[in-house]
Amino acid sequence: MLPERTSEFQLIESFRAAIGNSSHVLTGIGDDTAVVERPDGLVLLAADMLLEGVHFDLSAATPFQVGRKVLAVNLSDIAAMAGRPKYALVSLALSRSLQKETGSDFAGELFRGLHSLAAEFDTVIVGGDTNSWDGPVVINVAILGEVAEGNAVTRSAAQPGDWIFVTGRLGGSIAGHHFDFTPRVNEALALRESGSLHAMIDISDGLIADLYHILEESGVGAVINEVAIPISAAAAATNDERSPLEHALGDGEDFELLFTVSPEDGQRLVDDNPLTIPLSHIGEIVAGESCQLRDNSGKLITLPRLGWSHNVGGS
Amino acid sequence: MLPERTSEFQLIESFRAAIGNSSHVLTGIGDDTAVVERPDGLVLLAADMLLEGVHFDLSAATPFQVGRKVLAVNLSDIAAMAGRPKYALVSLALSRSLQKETGSDFAGELFRGLHSLAAEFDTVIVGGDTNSWDGPVVINVAILGEVAEGNAVTRSAAQPGDWIFVTGRLGGSIAGHHFDFTPRVNEALALRESGSLHAMIDISDGLIADLYHILEESGVGAVINEVAIPISAAAAATNDERSPLEHALGDGEDFELLFTVSPEDGQRLVDDNPLTIPLSHIGEIVAGESCQLRDNSGKLITLPRLGWSHNVGGS
Repeated sequence: MLPERTSEFQLIESFRAAIGNSSHVLTGIGDDTAVVERPDGLVLLAADMLLEGVHFDLSAATPFQVGRKVLAVNLSDIAAMAGRPKYALVSLALSRSLQKETGSDFAGELFRGLHSLAAEFDTVIVGGDTNSWDGPVVINVAILGEVAEGNAVTRSAAQPGDWIFVTGRLGGSIAGHHFDFTPRVNEALALRESGSLHAMIDISDGLIADLYHILEESGVGAVINEVAIPISAAAAATNDERSPLEHALGDGEDFELLFTVSPEDGQRLVDDNPLTIPLSHIGEIVAGESCQLRDNSGKLITLPRLGWSHNVGGS
Repeated sequence: MLPERTSEFQLIESFRAAIGNSSHVLTGIGDDTAVVERPDGLVLLAADMLLEGVHFDLSAATPFQVGRKVLAVNLSDIAAMAGRPKYALVSLALSRSLQKETGSDFAGELFRGLHSLAAEFDTVIVGGDTNSWDGPVVINVAILGEVAEGNAVTRSAAQPGDWIFVTGRLGGSIAGHHFDFTPRVNEALALRESGSLHAMIDISDGLIADLYHILEESGVGAVINEVAIPISAAAAATNDERSPLEHALGDGEDFELLFTVSPEDGQRLVDDNPLTIPLSHIGEIVAGESCQLRDNSGKLITLPRLGWSHNVGGS
């Protein structure tokens, strides 16, 4: 979640360098959550920090929405690993001037947003840290999830020949969906039940940017089909210099699942969608390292890593 | 960690109201960590957020010191439960102007500080979230610890007749010790080995303020002896309107252990200190709800809840 690419790389390198080694850490930095091995199974650990003025703007979002979203983003990370969320820790820096304006309502509404989603997904907020200062509002949620049995689904196991799927419809999330989206926890568990998921990620940076994360971690390429991309109503309704397709490919914060399965499992998903939301077969994993789009005339176009800056108002 | 008492109470009430119920959560808000029951034992979960200008000042502290401290505070919370730290998640909001000044050195030094202490205590930094913004530096660490066997040591099991102990020497931490303190993880484990710990807390708000936390959670009172309070060299060297004793009783961020045991276990600790640091028998738990100091003339003085504001420069 960094607007400046170079800083992001530097930071992630610092982060990687700081990571300790342990045979119990199966997946560290570089996936949606860390995966650690405990005597009774795999535990998933992740954290997301939302900053006022960067990730949300209090003139456009209610504290309820902000509270709900910070947990939703974490639940989406757990979903991307096909895990089940269990416990959350909430750390908060509240703005003193804001509290004077609104009394204790601000914190109460924020917690109400957090709690509504926690209750929906059987996640218990077990603690955290509360602070006041003169700076902008900062909220961090750290989450612990579990994998009932078997392995977590990472980004690194896509194989040439795999079919690529996406849940829901994509693009235009900035119009409102990024606050009210449902994290795909139950869908990921249902997909896992229905077959073998090879690689999975949640779409936070944008379809192509997140597909590239899978391609890089798996050492493969992909071809996706324009005709198959599920474009949301919000993306179709946009009226700017970018087409609805570009919005669906590039916009961030859809928080849908992007995953790959064997052709056999893929055919079964196409024949009988186990979900109550749309499921689209958008392309195939191939050898190589690039991501190409087959447009409606049949022409192959190599896609750059589009992406979304995660800045307020950015898209 | 809130400077304004009323806000803190409001916030903690909001927090409590937001807490979900689960039979697997043995201890939620109101102790040093949450305690959750997993199939293979107890897991401890805690988070601490440090804010530039509130908890640290970059004109007085290096990024290495800040990184080390934010993990040390979390390790101290795990120590207070007599647990063993295992995994940490680090969330970061870096100041863009600061990065321009210092390049990537700032983040690198911060991580070096985190990593040095993580390595010392076999704690693996498994992930987190990195961000840049125009605001002050914010660091959150969430930690997962475990209790090898038996129960975690909470604040709520002190009994009338218990002897009260404190590790190390107290007061004047603001002069520097609050950056270089060693979290008492190993000491807590050694104490646990040596007998039955009834109630325990780490001293972050100040000896009396934290003793009151134990008294309130346990529904008991205490009498402590002036003559037995271990005053640090830093507290003895202070030259302000408060006496060294007042510093030892009131100053925050000592990060020593304050605990109670049966008189029998207490006598054994007095006869044979199992630690390599001082261990002081400072008083007894009594019926009632107040905390009294027996001064050197034998007079009993009821102590108010002193405390430390956690503001930079405050003491």
